Amino acid sequence: MRSNGRNVDELRHVKITTQVNKYAEGSVLIEMGDTKVICTATVEEKVPPFLKGQGKGWVTAEYSMLPRATQTRNQREAARGKLTGRTMEIQRLIGRALRSVVNLQALGERSITLDCDVIQADGGTRTASITGAFVAMVFAINKLAQDRKLSQFPVTDYLAAISVGVVGDKALLDLNYEEDSKAKVDMNVVMTGAGAFVELQGTGEDRPFTRQELDQLLELGEKGVYELIAAQKEVLGEVALKIQSGQPGQEV
Amino acid sequence: MRSNGRNVDELRHVKITTQVNKYAEGSVLIEMGDTKVICTATVEEKVPPFLKGQGKGWVTAEYSMLPRATQTRNQREAARGKLTGRTMEIQRLIGRALRSVVNLQALGERSITLDCDVIQADGGTRTASITGAFVAMVFAINKLAQDRKLSQFPVTDYLAAISVGVVGDKALLDLNYEEDSKAKVDMNVVMTGAGAFVELQGTGEDRPFTRQELDQLLELGEKGVYELIAAQKEVLGEVALKIQSGQPGQEV
Amino acid sequence: MRSNGRNVDELRHVKITTQVNKYAEGSVLIEMGDTKVICTATVEEKVPPFLKGQGKGWVTAEYSMLPRATQTRNQREAARGKLTGRTMEIQRLIGRALRSVVNLQALGERSITLDCDVIQADGGTRTASITGAFVAMVFAINKLAQDRKLSQFPVTDYLAAISVGVVGDKALLDLNYEEDSKAKVDMNVVMTGAGAFVELQGTGEDRPFTRQELDQLLELGEKGVYELIAAQKEVLGEVALKIQSGQPGQEV
Amino acid sequence: MRSNGRNVDELRHVKITTQVNKYAEGSVLIEMGDTKVICTATVEEKVPPFLKGQGKGWVTAEYSMLPRATQTRNQREAARGKLTGRTMEIQRLIGRALRSVVNLQALGERSITLDCDVIQADGGTRTASITGAFVAMVFAINKLAQDRKLSQFPVTDYLAAISVGVVGDKALLDLNYEEDSKAKVDMNVVMTGAGAFVELQGTGEDRPFTRQELDQLLELGEKGVYELIAAQKEVLGEVALKIQSGQPGQEV
Amino acid sequence: MRSNGRNVDELRHVKITTQVNKYAEGSVLIEMGDTKVICTATVEEKVPPFLKGQGKGWVTAEYSMLPRATQTRNQREAARGKLTGRTMEIQRLIGRALRSVVNLQALGERSITLDCDVIQADGGTRTASITGAFVAMVFAINKLAQDRKLSQFPVTDYLAAISVGVVGDKALLDLNYEEDSKAKVDMNVVMTGAGAFVELQGTGEDRPFTRQELDQLLELGEKGVYELIAAQKEVLGEVALKIQSGQPGQEV
Amino acid sequence: MRSNGRNVDELRHVKITTQVNKYAEGSVLIEMGDTKVICTATVEEKVPPFLKGQGKGWVTAEYSMLPRATQTRNQREAARGKLTGRTMEIQRLIGRALRSVVNLQALGERSITLDCDVIQADGGTRTASITGAFVAMVFAINKLAQDRKLSQFPVTDYLAAISVGVVGDKALLDLNYEEDSKAKVDMNVVMTGAGAFVELQGTGEDRPFTRQELDQLLELGEKGVYELIAAQKEVLGEVALKIQSGQPGQEV
Repeated sequence: MRSNGRNVDELRHVKITTQVNKYAEGSVLIEMGDTKVICTATVEEKVPPFLKGQGKGWVTAEYSMLPRATQTRNQREAARGKLTGRTMEIQRLIGRALRSVVNLQALGERSITLDCDVIQADGGTRTASITGAFVAMVFAINKLAQDRKLSQFPVTDYLAAISVGVVGDKALLDLNYEEDSKAKVDMNVVMTGAGAFVELQGTGEDRPFTRQELDQLLELGEKGVYELIAAQKEVLGEVALKIQSGQPGQEV
Repeated sequence: MRSNGRNVDELRHVKITTQVNKYAEGSVLIEMGDTKVICTATVEEKVPPFLKGQGKGWVTAEYSMLPRATQTRNQREAARGKLTGRTMEIQRLIGRALRSVVNLQALGERSITLDCDVIQADGGTRTASITGAFVAMVFAINKLAQDRKLSQFPVTDYLAAISVGVVGDKALLDLNYEEDSKAKVDMNVVMTGAGAFVELQGTGEDRPFTRQELDQLLELGEKGVYELIAAQKEVLGEVALKIQSGQPGQEV
Repeated sequence: MRSNGRNVDELRHVKITTQVNKYAEGSVLIEMGDTKVICTATVEEKVPPFLKGQGKGWVTAEYSMLPRATQTRNQREAARGKLTGRTMEIQRLIGRALRSVVNLQALGERSITLDCDVIQADGGTRTASITGAFVAMVFAINKLAQDRKLSQFPVTDYLAAISVGVVGDKALLDLNYEEDSKAKVDMNVVMTGAGAFVELQGTGEDRPFTRQELDQLLELGEKGVYELIAAQKEVLGEVALKIQSGQPGQEV
Repeated sequence: MRSNGRNVDELRHVKITTQVNKYAEGSVLIEMGDTKVICTATVEEKVPPFLKGQGKGWVTAEYSMLPRATQTRNQREAARGKLTGRTMEIQRLIGRALRSVVNLQALGERSITLDCDVIQADGGTRTASITGAFVAMVFAINKLAQDRKLSQFPVTDYLAAISVGVVGDKALLDLNYEEDSKAKVDMNVVMTGAGAFVELQGTGEDRPFTRQELDQLLELGEKGVYELIAAQKEVLGEVALKIQSGQPGQEV
Repeated sequence: MRSNGRNVDELRHVKITTQVNKYAEGSVLIEMGDTKVICTATVEEKVPPFLKGQGKGWVTAEYSMLPRATQTRNQREAARGKLTGRTMEIQRLIGRALRSVVNLQALGERSITLDCDVIQADGGTRTASITGAFVAMVFAINKLAQDRKLSQFPVTDYLAAISVGVVGDKALLDLNYEEDSKAKVDMNVVMTGAGAFVELQGTGEDRPFTRQELDQLLELGEKGVYELIAAQKEVLGEVALKIQSGQPGQEV
Repeated sequence: MRSNGRNVDELRHVKITTQVNKYAEGSVLIEMGDTKVICTATVEEKVPPFLKGQGKGWVTAEYSMLPRATQTRNQREAARGKLTGRTMEIQRLIGRALRSVVNLQALGERSITLDCDVIQADGGTRTASITGAFVAMVFAINKLAQDRKLSQFPVTDYLAAISVGVVGDKALLDLNYEEDSKAKVDMNVVMTGAGAFVELQGTGEDRPFTRQELDQLLELGEKGVYELIAAQKEVLGEVALKIQSGQPGQEV
């Protein structure tokens, strides 16, 4: 039996609160159990230098944890003067994942920055960031659509992410910090609404893992992602109708 | 008439929510209107090198804004690789102010770090940080007291801070961002429960100010600080009884 | 009795030597007792990006201490790779203070940088920097006027600064290092020739301070500033006539 | 047909030259077609602070490319003053992979640093680094064994890595730069001699990928890794006998 | 007798391998005994800001050692976040030396960057870098000539460099690491094909040196440089004919 | 004829003012014409980590220019966040030169830091720094001797430095900025009282230089150094008697 009495294939309580920031073009607070992440989407009418003049947009992400998001306090990266490798890895992952479901041509020459700030961390912060940032991004893009700045809705599918892992000899869905710290195998699964993989990152933390274990973990991940996408649809309300998995973007 | 229909000597709605972080020894979310700051207090059983072996403790603070706490997005200081002068100035101020009401000898050889992270900024973030951090600090110290690690309660007085300023030709209490951006004179007032000044920082932003204006601003500031201390007492509940303004710390 | 036999309201020996640098548009060596600061003014025909194309000028300052300006050697900030919070705070203060007495519109689209380098430090380096930098700046602006680059003299008033503080139970003017290090209250006062405040920064170093103490300190500060402005006028000679406190800038 | 006339499941020409550095405890030059990486292993009789006094060793890696390893010159990270996110991600991956086949307890309180410096890059530099660094590490560990510093051979299995990907609609093994730059799906597979996964990193660069594609890619990756391990065994010669996949380390 | 049985005026075995990098416009691996340096020349059709619009080109160099080029491992400068003084000094020297034999006007508004990466270090890495970089640069310039981008061959003379020093009481040519580490006097000599000095850097490491010792060292250095230039001519083959020591550049 | 009517072998006016800093163990202001450098010597009873426990001392130097020491203002290295290559090269040179005339064993386990801060630069700042720093260092060492902390006077000889160069077709002594900027050859000569070389750095700025030119420059340099040493002896007064060129240090 897992702490909190969860089943092996059960997500923690998921809560997505929208409109948590009065300035951002899109914003949510996503909670996966005790993990809490504020995701804000900022739209800017400019693109990075390497994209200038190509008529395409850009989606990128930044990730950070408050110093006391964790059990012991971490030094601020601003005080250290540089980002850790972990942070860089995570924010590159979030940005890459989000771009995979956005038609950058249809977005037009503008950029969206997703800031994922972890207020409290209890495992799974990077996957929660992806799941929450997707919603914030869709709200920001919907605002562009409402402002008649787009001719086609550029979000091509849903996107959510979840962690899975092997603890003891059991494959588990949605590890909290305690489970994660003793996991033998750890995997992050990022999938679309159409059920395809966007990113798959599996690590044998304590020992290598077999093909059979991989299959089990993928199955759990798929289940988790579907449930998260259901939660996303709920908070997106009628905006959800504009996203058609695997279909060309709806005209605006 | 001010935006929100406030009187010149009227604070914005003040709300202090406690226990907002499950790991920190003390934590609050302070809201002054639309300004929202999370303050966490971390206790560590060590002191900075310059204090080692002196039997005294240390209180320090760090301050940061989420990138989209403001109307337009700011680059993260971690990405820039260094703190701005503004941030350094503010966190030095917060730390200095808090230390003024703590008997470091009575705290013992341990340190308390107050992290003030601005979730949303609408003016007055540094003063809100001081007011909120004081409460988080008192909770953390009370935990030390309950754990029987202190022989005397080391908080010597209440502490709160507020901004005042001259907008047009009117002296106003608790400026929001819109008022602050057109203020001719700007002043931050940090005071104790006993009504003495801990810090006074006045700047003629647009023009120098007279002695008469200074007197008006100090009067407004004093009023604001008293109301904030009343709000602090309310959330501190019975812990408040351990703080006796201007008296030697209560035995524990 | 104070060290050096000074009265409580007596400045240290003030000496302002002009033209100490053959390249700078304006330069002075200011000595307040054993505190010695070289202030140079550099005029450049460009403005920072945020001011471009607005027809306005800019005045800014940088501050530094030689490593052995103090009793024990300090590591160079260039070797540390970043400025300390103290340095940033001081140079922001100097720049803000100087700008308060310059009509940036009348200065035209050019910038003046005041470099304040402390050769020897015996307390009061930031206030000496302001007082000295003002003179260097006026010389640099006068050179612009003589070169017929200005249509109006853009300096709107005199500006000087002094430190005051409470040592033991006495309010003192112009603290040297020894006095400063045992001061209970410490205040920097920046004022104009017209007797108005530009900046007021008071800190209860050792204990909070009362309204009555504040009043005493302000009175001492005002006396000190007037004497410093008299010293400035003397070295400015006939250039001084171009500055009319509180009046629109003289035509050139 | 692939450039170079390779089959879809065919590795580029693999060449591992040993003893390429006269100082390092172990060193190889690995060439995968035109990709060339020098891997050196440095043994130091100390461990990072977080491992001190635990009787365990450490294995870590650093990765870098010469500025002109690629078609256009890249700025040096030393000149930029910081590592890119890509470099951090890669060196974390290499270190993690190598540690998965080393019994750190049996290694004793010492550390091995694998430096992977890319002399020429034509795709697959991170996987070539893992495959080459493994050999350099085994040589360095064998030297420790020969010097009678180990009681048990701490390498628990072989380790090699290869990239696979989908180009057009074909799954390919060992992508060169040209193929990699137009790949729709990209995956790095790190496996042991026993055929288990150590790391799996799949990315839908251009579009998400299906479960069926994943299965195809894993099959190709497995084939490639086995061939690489055969190449490792050849250059390791009799040292290879000390590594028994999935068995407790041989006594020394 | 010297280690390796060399005479006091004898170079180590010199080997210059060309075309060692398939992307660079020019590249060599230079070996002086066990010292090995890869030199690549990159041509870019742009110049640094300070040269823009002047119709002149630029030649610059960067220098680095792989971490385990030496007996004990050195921390990467990229990990330290800054270049050491030694590296800066060396790369400034290499660039200055190369520019002395290039007619920057004849090169046209383009720049050549020489990357000197030390693969293995056994003394004399900076002089080997100069000697090798010269050859890489000539190949790159010859490629420009063949592409008909130059009207005149801009290399005005040969250039090579060697170290000399006093060990014990003997003046020696081309010190290896062991000799260098016990040298009392150390000198680097950079000369042209016409026998003139480009750089001379002599240091009394252990004691000052006399005029007579200087003369001896210069004689040795001259001999060494001539032999190195002979080696350069051999690998340059017919390209060598385009360089006429001390003559105006050949027309292309 | 040179500007200022100097002969080709004539130094600028040399002025060494002692005791210019009330805190430093030794201090001078050295003026070579319009070049002005403050040199302070700081004694600390500790040595860098690499020398700990060896009973030897250390001498090191730091060099900096005030931003407006030159005709146009330079950005502060503290603001840039790192030292330029030029600064590193110069401070390494100064430190190396000073150590060559100090018996570090006799100095004992303590270190002396020479800070050379250029107040105004008109050519020859690095050589002026060496000449001035030598005097500041001797004063600091003499203070140690007077405090009975040394058993032998550790300064083994005088040390001074001067620049020489070829301007037009004339070899000149002690170039000012104007001459230096058009020099074809530039050389810095550091010599001892015994007439031996400590450092020799010659650069063909505009063209290579011949052996004959080298001989001319060395002769000028020698003459200049002797005159500087005479000036040093004058300000050192009776302390000078403790330094015996080329002799074992005097007992204290």
